[in-house]
Amino acid sequence: MNVREKLPIFTLSAWSALQLAAVEQALTGWVACPTVAPAPADLGEAMRYAVLDGGKRLRPLLVMAASEAVNGNAHAALRSACAVELIHAYSLVHDDLPCMDNDVLRRGKPTVHVKFGQAQALLAGDALQALAFEFLTPDDGSVDAAMQARLCRMLARAAGFQGMAGGQAIDLASVGRPLTFAQLHEMHRLKTGALLQASVMMGAACGSSSSAARDALRDYGAAVGLAFQVVDDILDVTADSATLGKTAGKDAAQDKPTFVSLLGLQASREYAQQLRVQAQASLKDSGLENTHALHALADMLVNRAH
Amino acid sequence: MNVREKLPIFTLSAWSALQLAAVEQALTGWVACPTVAPAPADLGEAMRYAVLDGGKRLRPLLVMAASEAVNGNAHAALRSACAVELIHAYSLVHDDLPCMDNDVLRRGKPTVHVKFGQAQALLAGDALQALAFEFLTPDDGSVDAAMQARLCRMLARAAGFQGMAGGQAIDLASVGRPLTFAQLHEMHRLKTGALLQASVMMGAACGSSSSAARDALRDYGAAVGLAFQVVDDILDVTADSATLGKTAGKDAAQDKPTFVSLLGLQASREYAQQLRVQAQASLKDSGLENTHALHALADMLVNRAH
Repeated sequence: MNVREKLPIFTLSAWSALQLAAVEQALTGWVACPTVAPAPADLGEAMRYAVLDGGKRLRPLLVMAASEAVNGNAHAALRSACAVELIHAYSLVHDDLPCMDNDVLRRGKPTVHVKFGQAQALLAGDALQALAFEFLTPDDGSVDAAMQARLCRMLARAAGFQGMAGGQAIDLASVGRPLTFAQLHEMHRLKTGALLQASVMMGAACGSSSSAARDALRDYGAAVGLAFQVVDDILDVTADSATLGKTAGKDAAQDKPTFVSLLGLQASREYAQQLRVQAQASLKDSGLENTHALHALADMLVNRAH
Repeated sequence: MNVREKLPIFTLSAWSALQLAAVEQALTGWVACPTVAPAPADLGEAMRYAVLDGGKRLRPLLVMAASEAVNGNAHAALRSACAVELIHAYSLVHDDLPCMDNDVLRRGKPTVHVKFGQAQALLAGDALQALAFEFLTPDDGSVDAAMQARLCRMLARAAGFQGMAGGQAIDLASVGRPLTFAQLHEMHRLKTGALLQASVMMGAACGSSSSAARDALRDYGAAVGLAFQVVDDILDVTADSATLGKTAGKDAAQDKPTFVSLLGLQASREYAQQLRVQAQASLKDSGLENTHALHALADMLVNRAH
């Protein structure tokens, strides 16, 4: 290969490595950083444990990819990427608590409440949610106020009762109950889909685009959000805990309705591929040119092994 | 609403009744309102149970009073008033959970987790925090974007690890340990003081004022925030559960350091009065004219019986 070649070939791994270097650096520097603004007692340590050194960072990558597609403000994109990851991280901490999923393993490590106690885990989750909105509202002039307000609005909706928290409430109510395909779909549209879609739309809100492009990105976000969950359900059955970094087989053990339990394994795999195709078709419809990363993320997300 | 134009003599009770009518109406209409945007399963019911029909609404009153002092945007003030109350309400729900204070009585009713279960209480608290930021970021043009961003920034800081959550972490670490006066002060500055002060400052941010006025209001907020906690500690010893609407005597039962355990009852009462005087002196320093409500709230807060 000619190293002087000016047109680089897009590879997701190289692109992701660059994005994640920035995201990890920002998270390390900003999350309750002991040298910047020390958090009281063990709280800062618990917050950092919950966020740093782990996770696929899928949501930050979606933010960065969507922002890239609209040539967005890099400061706003990085802050949004970190903010969605904080919301995701807090939801995992609370989800793992004994009164919810009672899980002891996450990202290959003991869960936050196992390591720091339930009360500290509860507080760390609460503080991470607040921190997400702090990240979105810097007062250093790097992100204009209208963009800050819009990003806060999108994140708050995606996290709240009409989004992630609402989906978890449906999840809670559905254990041991048969769900129809439509109900399962609705649960996941809220529980994981809302924040994944918001990641795409917040990235898009870091720049400007036509309303047709935004609609197309919204469709893309809905499709990858759902595909993510279908694949999650598949992996819960087919992968082991060491590969997943979390307890495998727990949906079946808890008698939770999943796409696999409803459709079967093969049909679930086909459904995931169908959603990927749909997501990538939406990218074409967007009329945006620089959608390589979004396209590749849809591939990665559906074909991932953990 | 400026009540003074209609009433010859300012009375806190008349003023509060008017403010609270607006706040209660807004909360009733906005918090997971079943007819507007139904929340899944019991989540909406748990959220409404946590917020509606109870509470002194001290924080909303501070917001409205401070906004009145700077002739603030009424829409922004009402939304801010509701947002700080949502943060307060969520913190109570989480605080009452078995892994924290394990309390069964709040505002004279069973706590949220007693009524809805721990998992639902956890989710309701999480969703209320998100909803606070949703309230602050309407897209109806009623509050300009710069103000929205500023209000989100203030609330996020006051709620997070450098504010309320941080104070609760100190509280958690301090049970059964002797604290110095300075440490107790710092714990309460964060745990309850940060959100009370933010209520004042968010109200002030709904309008415009000189930086000297804002500094004076910040001092007022710090003094009333601390006074509130001193009085809380006094009432925990002197009032009964029926009057308080929550379990009395629990600080001593849990061997928690309080102003009363550190200073004694009489000195605590004097300290509360001293903070009131200090708060009211700051109002004079502010140079603002319409501070009747803020002045009266400092009186009420220190002389309250529950």
